[in-house]
Amino acid sequence: MTRFRVAVHIVPRKGILDPQGKAVADALHALGFPSVGDVRVGRHLVLDLEAADAAEADTRVRAMCDKLLANPVTEDYEIAGVTPA
Amino acid sequence: MTRFRVAVHIVPRKGILDPQGKAVADALHALGFPSVGDVRVGRHLVLDLEAADAAEADTRVRAMCDKLLANPVTEDYEIAGVTPA
Repeated sequence: MTRFRVAVHIVPRKGILDPQGKAVADALHALGFPSVGDVRVGRHLVLDLEAADAAEADTRVRAMCDKLLANPVTEDYEIAGVTPA
Repeated sequence: MTRFRVAVHIVPRKGILDPQGKAVADALHALGFPSVGDVRVGRHLVLDLEAADAAEADTRVRAMCDKLLANPVTEDYEIAGVTPA
């Protein structure tokens, strides 16, 4: 078993309203950044786990996303990277 | 001016307690993923903005992180990618 570090991005699905992103964009405009258009705010998770290889670590983290980490109705997730820890 | 899409990761600084990450790790253990060790939960932001080139987009987003997006006491940020939108 090897220790892997897996990074996951969980973002609001396209077409779903992102009030937090809208609030950030408005605040940036007020602070003097008028060139900012759309902002999307999601979660960035970094998990340490033991697995036989990188493919197994990837599969296991996808199962975690499906079961707990991401809301299947409103969010999309992607595995951003699997590296030996 | 070109439209760029900039991705930013904002994560709790090393050594700072991450209660959200701890809660996620405990929930994963309870759901049958005992191989999970440390979990860190941060934010993943995707900003659309106009800039002359990728370097200017990067500089501008760093200024936004310093002014608004990241808490300089408890959080670190990194620009994960700058791509033409």
